[in-house]
Amino acid sequence: MTVELISIGTELLLGNIINTNANYLSIECAKLGFSMYHQVTVGDNEARLYEALKTALKRSDILILTGGLGPTSDDITKETLAKVLNRRLEMDEHSRERIQAYMNRIIATNKIIPKGLAKITENNWKQALKIEGSIVIDNDYGSAPGYIVEDNNKIILLLPGPPVEMIPMFNNMLPYLKKLQDKVFVTKMVKICGIGESTAETMIIDLIEGQSNPTIAPYAKGGEVHFRITASADNEKDALILINPILDEMNNRFGSNIFTADENETLEEVVIKLLKKHELTLVTAESCTGGLLSGRIVNVPGASEVFTEGFITYSNQSKIKYLGVNTDTLADYGAVSEQTAKEMAIGAVKASGSNVSIAVTGIAGPGGGTASKPVGLVYFACSVSDKVFVSERHFKGSREKIREHSVVAALDLIRRSIIEVYG
Amino acid sequence: MTVELISIGTELLLGNIINTNANYLSIECAKLGFSMYHQVTVGDNEARLYEALKTALKRSDILILTGGLGPTSDDITKETLAKVLNRRLEMDEHSRERIQAYMNRIIATNKIIPKGLAKITENNWKQALKIEGSIVIDNDYGSAPGYIVEDNNKIILLLPGPPVEMIPMFNNMLPYLKKLQDKVFVTKMVKICGIGESTAETMIIDLIEGQSNPTIAPYAKGGEVHFRITASADNEKDALILINPILDEMNNRFGSNIFTADENETLEEVVIKLLKKHELTLVTAESCTGGLLSGRIVNVPGASEVFTEGFITYSNQSKIKYLGVNTDTLADYGAVSEQTAKEMAIGAVKASGSNVSIAVTGIAGPGGGTASKPVGLVYFACSVSDKVFVSERHFKGSREKIREHSVVAALDLIRRSIIEVYG
Repeated sequence: MTVELISIGTELLLGNIINTNANYLSIECAKLGFSMYHQVTVGDNEARLYEALKTALKRSDILILTGGLGPTSDDITKETLAKVLNRRLEMDEHSRERIQAYMNRIIATNKIIPKGLAKITENNWKQALKIEGSIVIDNDYGSAPGYIVEDNNKIILLLPGPPVEMIPMFNNMLPYLKKLQDKVFVTKMVKICGIGESTAETMIIDLIEGQSNPTIAPYAKGGEVHFRITASADNEKDALILINPILDEMNNRFGSNIFTADENETLEEVVIKLLKKHELTLVTAESCTGGLLSGRIVNVPGASEVFTEGFITYSNQSKIKYLGVNTDTLADYGAVSEQTAKEMAIGAVKASGSNVSIAVTGIAGPGGGTASKPVGLVYFACSVSDKVFVSERHFKGSREKIREHSVVAALDLIRRSIIEVYG
Repeated sequence: MTVELISIGTELLLGNIINTNANYLSIECAKLGFSMYHQVTVGDNEARLYEALKTALKRSDILILTGGLGPTSDDITKETLAKVLNRRLEMDEHSRERIQAYMNRIIATNKIIPKGLAKITENNWKQALKIEGSIVIDNDYGSAPGYIVEDNNKIILLLPGPPVEMIPMFNNMLPYLKKLQDKVFVTKMVKICGIGESTAETMIIDLIEGQSNPTIAPYAKGGEVHFRITASADNEKDALILINPILDEMNNRFGSNIFTADENETLEEVVIKLLKKHELTLVTAESCTGGLLSGRIVNVPGASEVFTEGFITYSNQSKIKYLGVNTDTLADYGAVSEQTAKEMAIGAVKASGSNVSIAVTGIAGPGGGTASKPVGLVYFACSVSDKVFVSERHFKGSREKIREHSVVAALDLIRRSIIEVYG
């Protein structure tokens, strides 16, 4: 089945917000096995939305509309679709009650309008109107309900624009969408680090090009490479039979570069899991990443069990003071060197009493590079139970990109070092 | 004039990448004063691209095409547009030479293919073909040139898909685009922090709704609110005459909440500038933000002049050990309290010898909240030359969002505190 996205909102055409909904829904539709051939964005304009809907109904089986379900006169998605389909709008009592409850909560917590003056305005009830014959989908995170409309062998989904409302509502529509497929689609995500995107693709280009079921699609994500494997079959078991040989082959080729095959697991979660498994605690010593590595680690809920402290030692002086880096080492080899990284890692363990440390020191640019130590040169050292592992990397791109890739490389070194010591 | 974006690439329809180009070009076109009514995304498919081009040429004055200019057989943007316009493709010698030079550089630095085996393949020369009569725009960051095609009162821009190539090339096209306007468009960006988006909008809703020239458009950006003011006039001076009263009025209403009116200046840059101006140095003491604040500060090139070190004190023990927080304070008030934040800030100054410190301690969730200290409660303390300023904030949303807003609030407190002390 073919699916078409129609994003509605003048704020998208003005660039006030990035259309992350289109990306999210593209991924979800690919996982469901729908073929997406068109994405369209129009403003809050009836004539142009009417035209977009007419065109989409001619060429696509499923239309997914986001935005324009709010209470203001600018919000015209439902009204325009009703015109296109020649259907009436009717009051939905269930939605009316939910909107009443939702607005009461908003009014109770609002701080701008003086108490007593805040009230539900007439236009809020517009959100309780549904297209006759449509299925109403509750909005648990906002006031605008969503809808599924079936019309003449076409299916139209209406979703609110804000991602915090759209995503959970789309998830509630998944059982309905899955029923539209006679095939079951199963996807696995193989996540790799330590290899660049083009190298990784080259290593399995025969698999990517030789396969139609399952398909293999690469997704690059700031220093990591993700491959999504999607198979369709009559049931999940048969789909897995198609996927498993590919997974095995990717394991053969990428080996320890694969850090997870679980779509929802991040690299930092893998690191935290390894630390917990071996009852280790981590300390960070960051120079060029300046806190970004630690920031990513504490993004994992429960990180505090294994990560209690870190040092941002941007200056030479602070490397000496907090980490005990030798003045001679800095003078002889410089702050960006294997030797300094190593002493930072050892010093961080000593200062903190943790048994794992990670040290990062490098040149993020744009200034500070030399012929022998160019921008993008970064040294990493990881101490695991007194064994120290060192890594030298060369990254390209902007200051931000070099630091982003450094964070991934640091996490990856912790992962590899713990596995090396503890198996 | 109306402009339409056509993004070309199956990777967009599969969700492998987010279409940030559409957002970038929307903002740029708004600044140029072009009206954007449609954005369309199609895959690498000739029939559908042909149709999209035909439709766009009927309804829009300027078409901006991104993607599909590469060397593979999937890349069909130029070829399809030539068919639509009934024009030939012809070899452009200038582009041919540039591609030769570019590919020689790539081959010289490639590490995958053994030396001697790497060569320029026949399909690379496809990129040197231009649509007859088009203007070739050099690509300084990749092999695919861009083009400007004029046809029958319509203008079509062809740009490569990767943002690192697209953005500089679009900038090179700006002088051409500006000539299409008989009016000059001038924009100013007022950036605000310390006030939420809806509150900020409410505060100037009369200005937003009452104005058509200049227009005022809000852009929310993780804890900050940006307002873009755009005026059109016969010349820059007249445009500024229209903008300045609005700027004055916004200054009246938002006062010190405005941290810059320079589009290219970030909050962290403002903070670094203030520190440099008053010859101050900064130390960070982060608990719940766990390094994110420091990471954002060092993203500013040259930050090392004023920021030399920081502490990530996630555990109580590390707050005591490195920052000298009193055991009794932690026992009596808890780690998330005004008192602890204050002692962290004072301790960081003592430990480091810096004259400005910022401390952050809060509950980012999802766990750890209580009735009296809910998830989202964050305390900040900033010491400036021994005066300590404290701030209590309540944020909503996910762990990541709470921490992102905490970083902005921390930067804002440094800014306000320095201004308070030094004027």
